[in-house]
Amino acid sequence: MAIGTYEQYHNRLLKMKPNVYLDGNQVDRSGPWMRGGLYVFKQTYDYANDPKYQDVCTATSHLNGEKISRFNHTHRSIDDLLKKQLMTRLLCHRVGGCTQRCMGVDALNALSVVTFDIDKALGTKYNERFNKYLAYCQSLDLAHNCAQTDVKGIRGLRPSEQPDPDQYVRIVEVKPDGIIVRGAKVCNSCAPYVDEIIVTPSRLMGAKEAAYAVAFALPADWDGVKIMALPGLHPRRKKLTSPASEVGDVESMTIFDDVFVPNDRIFMNGLENPGVVQYAGYLALMFAHFHRHSYTGCKTAVSEVIAAEAALVADVNGISKYDHVKEKISHIIGTAELVFAAGQASAYRAIEFPNGSWVPDEILTNAGRRLAGEEIYNEYKILADLAGGISASLPTEESYYDPKTANLVAKYTTRNPAYTAEQAHRVFRMMENKLCDPFEGCQMVAGVHGGGSPIMETITMMSRYDLEPLKDIAKYLCGINPDLPRFERATATPRAMLEKFKKIQQQTK
Amino acid sequence: MAIGTYEQYHNRLLKMKPNVYLDGNQVDRSGPWMRGGLYVFKQTYDYANDPKYQDVCTATSHLNGEKISRFNHTHRSIDDLLKKQLMTRLLCHRVGGCTQRCMGVDALNALSVVTFDIDKALGTKYNERFNKYLAYCQSLDLAHNCAQTDVKGIRGLRPSEQPDPDQYVRIVEVKPDGIIVRGAKVCNSCAPYVDEIIVTPSRLMGAKEAAYAVAFALPADWDGVKIMALPGLHPRRKKLTSPASEVGDVESMTIFDDVFVPNDRIFMNGLENPGVVQYAGYLALMFAHFHRHSYTGCKTAVSEVIAAEAALVADVNGISKYDHVKEKISHIIGTAELVFAAGQASAYRAIEFPNGSWVPDEILTNAGRRLAGEEIYNEYKILADLAGGISASLPTEESYYDPKTANLVAKYTTRNPAYTAEQAHRVFRMMENKLCDPFEGCQMVAGVHGGGSPIMETITMMSRYDLEPLKDIAKYLCGINPDLPRFERATATPRAMLEKFKKIQQQTK
Amino acid sequence: MAIGTYEQYHNRLLKMKPNVYLDGNQVDRSGPWMRGGLYVFKQTYDYANDPKYQDVCTATSHLNGEKISRFNHTHRSIDDLLKKQLMTRLLCHRVGGCTQRCMGVDALNALSVVTFDIDKALGTKYNERFNKYLAYCQSLDLAHNCAQTDVKGIRGLRPSEQPDPDQYVRIVEVKPDGIIVRGAKVCNSCAPYVDEIIVTPSRLMGAKEAAYAVAFALPADWDGVKIMALPGLHPRRKKLTSPASEVGDVESMTIFDDVFVPNDRIFMNGLENPGVVQYAGYLALMFAHFHRHSYTGCKTAVSEVIAAEAALVADVNGISKYDHVKEKISHIIGTAELVFAAGQASAYRAIEFPNGSWVPDEILTNAGRRLAGEEIYNEYKILADLAGGISASLPTEESYYDPKTANLVAKYTTRNPAYTAEQAHRVFRMMENKLCDPFEGCQMVAGVHGGGSPIMETITMMSRYDLEPLKDIAKYLCGINPDLPRFERATATPRAMLEKFKKIQQQTK
Amino acid sequence: MAIGTYEQYHNRLLKMKPNVYLDGNQVDRSGPWMRGGLYVFKQTYDYANDPKYQDVCTATSHLNGEKISRFNHTHRSIDDLLKKQLMTRLLCHRVGGCTQRCMGVDALNALSVVTFDIDKALGTKYNERFNKYLAYCQSLDLAHNCAQTDVKGIRGLRPSEQPDPDQYVRIVEVKPDGIIVRGAKVCNSCAPYVDEIIVTPSRLMGAKEAAYAVAFALPADWDGVKIMALPGLHPRRKKLTSPASEVGDVESMTIFDDVFVPNDRIFMNGLENPGVVQYAGYLALMFAHFHRHSYTGCKTAVSEVIAAEAALVADVNGISKYDHVKEKISHIIGTAELVFAAGQASAYRAIEFPNGSWVPDEILTNAGRRLAGEEIYNEYKILADLAGGISASLPTEESYYDPKTANLVAKYTTRNPAYTAEQAHRVFRMMENKLCDPFEGCQMVAGVHGGGSPIMETITMMSRYDLEPLKDIAKYLCGINPDLPRFERATATPRAMLEKFKKIQQQTK
Repeated sequence: MAIGTYEQYHNRLLKMKPNVYLDGNQVDRSGPWMRGGLYVFKQTYDYANDPKYQDVCTATSHLNGEKISRFNHTHRSIDDLLKKQLMTRLLCHRVGGCTQRCMGVDALNALSVVTFDIDKALGTKYNERFNKYLAYCQSLDLAHNCAQTDVKGIRGLRPSEQPDPDQYVRIVEVKPDGIIVRGAKVCNSCAPYVDEIIVTPSRLMGAKEAAYAVAFALPADWDGVKIMALPGLHPRRKKLTSPASEVGDVESMTIFDDVFVPNDRIFMNGLENPGVVQYAGYLALMFAHFHRHSYTGCKTAVSEVIAAEAALVADVNGISKYDHVKEKISHIIGTAELVFAAGQASAYRAIEFPNGSWVPDEILTNAGRRLAGEEIYNEYKILADLAGGISASLPTEESYYDPKTANLVAKYTTRNPAYTAEQAHRVFRMMENKLCDPFEGCQMVAGVHGGGSPIMETITMMSRYDLEPLKDIAKYLCGINPDLPRFERATATPRAMLEKFKKIQQQTK
Repeated sequence: MAIGTYEQYHNRLLKMKPNVYLDGNQVDRSGPWMRGGLYVFKQTYDYANDPKYQDVCTATSHLNGEKISRFNHTHRSIDDLLKKQLMTRLLCHRVGGCTQRCMGVDALNALSVVTFDIDKALGTKYNERFNKYLAYCQSLDLAHNCAQTDVKGIRGLRPSEQPDPDQYVRIVEVKPDGIIVRGAKVCNSCAPYVDEIIVTPSRLMGAKEAAYAVAFALPADWDGVKIMALPGLHPRRKKLTSPASEVGDVESMTIFDDVFVPNDRIFMNGLENPGVVQYAGYLALMFAHFHRHSYTGCKTAVSEVIAAEAALVADVNGISKYDHVKEKISHIIGTAELVFAAGQASAYRAIEFPNGSWVPDEILTNAGRRLAGEEIYNEYKILADLAGGISASLPTEESYYDPKTANLVAKYTTRNPAYTAEQAHRVFRMMENKLCDPFEGCQMVAGVHGGGSPIMETITMMSRYDLEPLKDIAKYLCGINPDLPRFERATATPRAMLEKFKKIQQQTK
Repeated sequence: MAIGTYEQYHNRLLKMKPNVYLDGNQVDRSGPWMRGGLYVFKQTYDYANDPKYQDVCTATSHLNGEKISRFNHTHRSIDDLLKKQLMTRLLCHRVGGCTQRCMGVDALNALSVVTFDIDKALGTKYNERFNKYLAYCQSLDLAHNCAQTDVKGIRGLRPSEQPDPDQYVRIVEVKPDGIIVRGAKVCNSCAPYVDEIIVTPSRLMGAKEAAYAVAFALPADWDGVKIMALPGLHPRRKKLTSPASEVGDVESMTIFDDVFVPNDRIFMNGLENPGVVQYAGYLALMFAHFHRHSYTGCKTAVSEVIAAEAALVADVNGISKYDHVKEKISHIIGTAELVFAAGQASAYRAIEFPNGSWVPDEILTNAGRRLAGEEIYNEYKILADLAGGISASLPTEESYYDPKTANLVAKYTTRNPAYTAEQAHRVFRMMENKLCDPFEGCQMVAGVHGGGSPIMETITMMSRYDLEPLKDIAKYLCGINPDLPRFERATATPRAMLEKFKKIQQQTK
Repeated sequence: MAIGTYEQYHNRLLKMKPNVYLDGNQVDRSGPWMRGGLYVFKQTYDYANDPKYQDVCTATSHLNGEKISRFNHTHRSIDDLLKKQLMTRLLCHRVGGCTQRCMGVDALNALSVVTFDIDKALGTKYNERFNKYLAYCQSLDLAHNCAQTDVKGIRGLRPSEQPDPDQYVRIVEVKPDGIIVRGAKVCNSCAPYVDEIIVTPSRLMGAKEAAYAVAFALPADWDGVKIMALPGLHPRRKKLTSPASEVGDVESMTIFDDVFVPNDRIFMNGLENPGVVQYAGYLALMFAHFHRHSYTGCKTAVSEVIAAEAALVADVNGISKYDHVKEKISHIIGTAELVFAAGQASAYRAIEFPNGSWVPDEILTNAGRRLAGEEIYNEYKILADLAGGISASLPTEESYYDPKTANLVAKYTTRNPAYTAEQAHRVFRMMENKLCDPFEGCQMVAGVHGGGSPIMETITMMSRYDLEPLKDIAKYLCGINPDLPRFERATATPRAMLEKFKKIQQQTK
């Protein structure tokens, strides 16, 4: 069995070189600023080791048949996709939000699919190399993140057109035993507490951008990797600790300051194989696609957590029975259900790819992710509405324990008598954390942008949705066309984009 | 094989007694006011007879193994539910909206489930009776509608509290060979062109409402059944006929003016079996539930048709490439995808009921139906937006053929040169029909109310959704509860409501 | 006193030449297809003659000090603007929607302002000519519409780039005594029942589009003017007549089939005075601006009428007391109040133009109009929601009078006993007309597009709103700028666009 | 001249007794936790002393004709109301949000109106007492807050029905020289840094609630007043200070622990004058009304600040030119314009009250406030959307100055070259503060709840809006009523509620 423990994982972190930059210092991975992220990753290890949850949190490696953490598994069936969604939702319920480790599994899956397709088309050996790397990750149950979002410089310009060519991560030198890369990735969650950072392109690349068609994986403390950290934490509590107060993360701008990547860790290199350039966008989209499918699990849970907190605080406030309260909670539940159904139905429509992976439907996955992104601020609004102004004006925790004031604030905090003063305090303290807190502010922003903002999902949907068969319905109805073939939207995946792109390239040769 | 033809069906209609009341006359079923509805029902027969579509439009009777129209089938598997959804969507694409015949299949399914449960609990023989009736319907491929919505009188009062006791259909006399019923059902689509009208209660009934706990089926021209008709038609076209212009329906207030129902057509009788009173609401909800699941097929198609027409008219207007246009079309497509996914995932989560029927998940079905209902007017708004004001000011059809004006109006109607003048005319004519037409106005209203308005879905969802396990997530996160059991929302169905209701009754005895 | 009567107006119509094309016939203005529009225009004359309403419906001519209909007045003060808004709202309440005659007053006001500015800049005599024309219109209390919306051909191309140069109305020949014009205007409401049609450009014109920079006025039956009509009517009622059932209109595609315009009726001619080309867009925007300000009166009334009908039907249905019902009605009322306030505050911020006219604020006027346009379909949705499905399935009027059925349908239509059967019937009949009727379908489309669709208002707002002073607030707050001047958004008007446009032209010379 | 300075104000605070409870300590008013609130109040003093801004920030006392701060003025004209709105907006622009001192002016205005009406009806002397108090406040330019929101205990129960009678502030003893009060007020912003706390009821009171009909003012450090504080601050910056980073506040639960109030500071006492009980709700509503009218100034500014930051960050990101970006900014601007117009038009419709005060229209004020409340989270969503994920993952400030990393993070933060690295850093730092910050989280909550959440505005609107004249429009249109009186909604104010309430009381006597 290849399921790691939190202790193993944590010990690996403690041995890493100090390449984290925080508040002006260069630090190792032992500080309390990491506690929030460690708490979350601990759940991912603990639940995989808990027999009660192994049905969803573990899988069987297709490489060697061993039982492994699902976070290191590539999906070999529809059932795998459904279970990945369930695992994500399950863990998100337990940490009240993002489970953080999904980036890794999504990047591994994208690489598995794309390296196979590249090799088949170009005769390269990336997939073999990747499978070795995957076996290594599975055997140690390593934790990954994925560094995808380039800093991008001037928005309207392509990577090769930027005045500063480093605004997208690129190869600056090719050596016999590897490459030197330079650039930076932002919004790079968890970088200080993962074992490995997987780097993928963030967009389509053209012929002039061979140096930008690059993908690789590195240990997070590798020479030249500089992690500019931003911890996200709830204020430390002295008395009222609870899961909601322990959760946190660390965001990062991860800088690749002329970093050497050895050959066995390179999964795409446009300077070595110019043919792979056209696969850069495919890889970018494939990661985004698996990641958005993960979002149909986590965003469901995020909405359910908000609905749960809304229902609980409404109860504490004694307003559960009012119609408008029920309607508002029902609205959040409806979104959660629809987003989850989108992910499930995407999985049921998944197709097998040449490498043996199963890839869910892209239109529906994007439609689900988009709904979640559009609704997230509204859901916080509903929570604020039902929680009331006290969530923004609760006396500090100490006031509830200082003998001079404890009785008074308890007396004036209690509402529905079904909840004790301490329970009411706990709920409002959680509301303060949820609604008025840097970590949760970041979660709202992540709710919009994580995996791509709603406008990106719209663009993806409309790039992949074939409007012609749809328009045929209207042409039939108004009599332009005499017949209407059965309208059956084919499963859409990034591969369709790739085929379209290749065709365009051939036509324009 | 027991698949009927349109001719057989139409001949049956022509032989019916004239019990339709229209514009002050009592008429038979041969008039042109019926053409719209007949056109739609014709499709339901034709596609079931077309080998290309029999995979979804036909099924295998569980009564005798014969191939039958799916409209007379009770769902015996998840696959049946998925195919019913597909059939509904397929036919709706072809008529540009409601396929109209789903009421029948939904009522048959509800009766199949509920009569079985009643018999098991009370030792009655309703299910046996129903199965004979079902076999009869299957053998002739009869078309049904369902008369559910009572006129309801004063909204705040229960049926038994109304000053006029006839505001809900009720039994006014029990005879040895049957019952006499009185009352009226509104919003009773298709009554003049179905073979049979199935009558079910529209709400929960209490002990004082035994006379209202009644369900039965009757031929549509039965003595005492008075159909107050309202035809819905597009204006007749002289030149530019097309499917969109042929479609129509007839709405009805169907009055039961002291109608005798023979025993073999009664499927619930609260005066004979007081125990069934508590099943009245169960039947009402079960019909609504199957019907809302059908809506996940038809509302998907309704949105897709609007998206198709929006995409086509945007093309004719030459504005397809603009971002805001794509974004608007994408919004409609997203709704269609999510509603369809809701129905599909509901089917995948279906459970088998004691009678052998499969019943989809209610929360998700309602969430899907609600989204469709909330969006429908917005979708028409988007269509109006992209079609432009010309949809409300197009010269009459004759102007396009009158030699004095034909060239001029053609010249000034053409836009994108990829479409001929006639094609542009066809498209705008369809836009006029879609946006400025009594039939489509009714379709918008039906989009809100058909199967229950969004507020009914909210009520259903919140009646069935168990908030306690959901609140447990929040209680765990804030530290009120130390553990969190796996949150797995059980499949919710009207049966859960029935069990809850029975428990309440027993406790209050 | 120069206030006309309906009889005078109607007699003028009856004398007109038959240049209306309807259903393949060329007809005069005596047919019943005009009754809806005549009913509405009758109100505009009657209320101006009713002393109780002359405070808002009449004004004092600045040309000769006579009391005139406000529909022929150019606004000489803030008070005039406020009263124009009030008059529009007042009349719209009485016809349950669009008062139809506002196009005329808005076009007259736009011409008054723009011709003055042109003359001042170019030394032409358009304003003198226009004032004579205005005096003539005031003396006879003529009714106008405005033909602005060109058919536009291929959307992406400018007028001069179209393969067919006639897709925008243009001058095809200049003669000593006038010009010959060709082209067509769509969405040209009321053309068959106005005295005069005023033609203005629909967009900015460039140097190559001198022939398109043209404005003029003609009697509606002038030679070569061909009115392709589309009547909008409620179905004729036999018993239950009421204002709501009398109202209607006629839409038109108005074709200028090589029409001669005499010099004294030309108010802009780009071939004669190339300098006016840059004023074409100014005139287009100035008409749109006055028209959108009128919309702050009529859209307020449109929303109030819907709210009124929603409140009444909720009462008939006996659901007035439910919170969700109140909330929905309150939402419509809130929109009405905000749109009206936008128009009022725009008037209070109005500025005097060189010709002595007062012009309201453009940003706010557009913000108000946009809100109304975005909400209109939603308001119909709310009405459909509260009215219930019966609005789409009400038995025909005759069923309520046919002795065979009258008692039955009355019995089953009555709900809240505070309303008689006939009153309930009246209300639901109005609901049918409102929700399921070609005329009202057109009103919904007009609610989106009339005066410019929401996207046009967004474009106008963002063209005129100076973002730099706004951004200064953010620059001050983040410390880029040390000081923050008082942020006072200047009143924005189409003139600002003109100045900007002129500056650009001079710079690029 | 009676305009105070910040120094005078601050010196008064420093002399106060230490009755603030923070983090378990009882503290005075000299700590750094107050810096944010002091920064904001400083602006209110400085601008009143700056001749450039005295046109809006000062007023003329109606008591003695002296020039005073507008924050201590009662509005004696429409112009006063317009200027109060302008002052609020002006100051809010400068602090990037809430100006905090409006509670005082709103409470003073409410007391001025209500005490006059009470005295007139009951022959009491409250208004005389209040005017003395007002003169005192004006002479020293004191700063106030208003303690209105009771902790409320069990929501469904009235004050007199609560198991704990102290859940609403009440009189527990009447003495010859004053009263003893007990209870607590939450969401009591600024309590630690105002001179005076004004206490008003939070709801209608019934006959059994005479002890709850109480209003008074006390110095903020009065014996028994216990301020349970919650500071709201942005993280302290070391280098990049700017107004946005200085702003903050302190929220409070303010406990009245058996506090003696001397007679000359009591403005309503239900135990002394039972007749005033019916004025408790009037006072509550009058404060809410003036406060909501202030919100039409501040919420306008709040939206404008968000729009300003959105426009600036879009520019830094180089995406200003995209249509969807313009559309999103335009949406926020539209809301700001409509909310401001609502306040302005409410002022123009204001009426003079018996005491000489001018009171704006309540329906429109509430419609404006509600729109702002409904939109606030959406506006933050738009800002998050345009700012991008970097706002949630920006390296800490020190990384931009640490020589090891400064150049790298600067290189990878720069985007649009029109902005220097430091300017880009400043803008993103402000985005972090705006989107991911406890203080701003509280501002979002306050955006929903401050002055009453949207549902309270809906209730107020529907309580005051007379639906009968509105329904008359529909009754006329459908023919129930033959005539339609001119629909002119009267100005609605809390006084109308009072009259209605009195009438009901008399009828039920």
